[in-house]
Amino acid sequence: MQIGLIGLGKMGYNLALNLRDHNHDVVAFDLSTESMASIEKEGVATAATIGELVQKLEGRKVVWVMVPAGAPTDSVLQELTPQLGLGDIIIDGGNSNYKDSVLRATKLKLSGIHLLDCGTSGGLTGARNGACTMVGGDAEAFDYCETIFRDVSVERGYLYTGKSGSGHYVKMVHNGVEYGMMQAIAEGFEVLHKSEYDINHKEVARVWNHGSVVRSWLMELVESAFGKDPQLEGLKGIMHSSGEGKWTVETALEMEVATPVIALSLLMRYRSQENDTFSGKVVAALRNEFGGHKVEKAN
Amino acid sequence: MQIGLIGLGKMGYNLALNLRDHNHDVVAFDLSTESMASIEKEGVATAATIGELVQKLEGRKVVWVMVPAGAPTDSVLQELTPQLGLGDIIIDGGNSNYKDSVLRATKLKLSGIHLLDCGTSGGLTGARNGACTMVGGDAEAFDYCETIFRDVSVERGYLYTGKSGSGHYVKMVHNGVEYGMMQAIAEGFEVLHKSEYDINHKEVARVWNHGSVVRSWLMELVESAFGKDPQLEGLKGIMHSSGEGKWTVETALEMEVATPVIALSLLMRYRSQENDTFSGKVVAALRNEFGGHKVEKAN
Repeated sequence: MQIGLIGLGKMGYNLALNLRDHNHDVVAFDLSTESMASIEKEGVATAATIGELVQKLEGRKVVWVMVPAGAPTDSVLQELTPQLGLGDIIIDGGNSNYKDSVLRATKLKLSGIHLLDCGTSGGLTGARNGACTMVGGDAEAFDYCETIFRDVSVERGYLYTGKSGSGHYVKMVHNGVEYGMMQAIAEGFEVLHKSEYDINHKEVARVWNHGSVVRSWLMELVESAFGKDPQLEGLKGIMHSSGEGKWTVETALEMEVATPVIALSLLMRYRSQENDTFSGKVVAALRNEFGGHKVEKAN
Repeated sequence: MQIGLIGLGKMGYNLALNLRDHNHDVVAFDLSTESMASIEKEGVATAATIGELVQKLEGRKVVWVMVPAGAPTDSVLQELTPQLGLGDIIIDGGNSNYKDSVLRATKLKLSGIHLLDCGTSGGLTGARNGACTMVGGDAEAFDYCETIFRDVSVERGYLYTGKSGSGHYVKMVHNGVEYGMMQAIAEGFEVLHKSEYDINHKEVARVWNHGSVVRSWLMELVESAFGKDPQLEGLKGIMHSSGEGKWTVETALEMEVATPVIALSLLMRYRSQENDTFSGKVVAALRNEFGGHKVEKAN
């Protein structure tokens, strides 16, 4: 079917190719003329502006927005909304906060426009060859777009999760789980790394991926990483995050639900971003105050 | 090849069938006459005593011991060892502490007997149809037995990990990682469960298993569990443990390696085993002392 696609970043670009491969009639727009030229060469139609993109869509319009969460998404919706009409559908495939999605859906409904909040997982290869999509919003709008979600996802890899916000909610929790799983895997390899044994990390990841209880896609990815750099010497252990782990913890706090491992995984990421900590200085100072314990002087 | 197998518990029994299917000539022994009768019906030879089992083995003897870690393993080794000779090989396929395996291997070496410490993962279906095995000990003894490990494991699912103890060490860390992954998954489902959305846990687990970053065997198992009991109403949230998570944390403490998520996953298991806590009483009492805050009286 005909789909407008706004955003040709790493995820959006691969999604455009994925949609094209499934014979959808994509009209793409991105601020980067480079991405636009590149996707055109791949046989995907483009539009010079969001207005032109909307004009190229016929009948009941469907526009997939694949831009960074927060201000960029708001900005695109603000420009897009006045050009759409009753019954048209916007799919937000980015990592928006589910609360934003609820507010946006409520606002768009006043103009008769549906917002489907679509959490998308699977990384770049997923966007290209088959993602995992979790979709919230009006059931009728989902039904209308179901073929899109079926086509861009791996087999059995899409789910209608319920009312507005639920798609991004489920995706948020997915990422919280991901933080915990990653930290657990990482700690395990540290215990192997510092042991008295001469452990081949890649081989351990490989054997754990074949028949063990912890076999998983993340373990396959770590096997691949160790294959390229056996001791990960080329990397610093600085762990960035993009917000969804934090939202999971914030949501858990609001509901007063204990999620210690997800919370601690998030905090370990923050810790990794500092060379030294003020809390460390406080503890060192206190040990020195009460026990005269040695401190390490800053230069 | 000819293999003695001591222990026909859940794991050992399935392993016997697995070995039989790969045309190994198994002689099994267990204290339970019921298990012995049952495995005989499956076409596996048995021996009435450990002594008889050893006598039935010809040439260089290989005995796989699959009994609970600790005292049961020591007891079997104590009975078995005097009956074996130079070059013979004992495989400890149980969940022994790697330090015990190092000590046992050192002791057995005095009699010229090799101990291979084999960490076995994959649960009952793994033992039956293809496990994941991590094997430490003398390389020559491993080579002699490699066909066994290849046959009982899934394809690419066995690894020679190095010197004595390393097999059980890698398996111990595997279980530590497993604790963290399980707790992360579990916390995620709690955040879904308590949300304002009417989330179908099984369907979420299903979609997460198709194309998402957190796809994993544990997620498949949780999908299966939700399939049987959508809200897990038939279960209490009491999480037992069998020692390997604890050993991982103890080992991390010895090495002074920070493994907060694995440690906290273990502590959450301990917490789950108590209806109420003394530490909770202490905090309630303190809040009452300094702020007159309400406490809940015990009956």
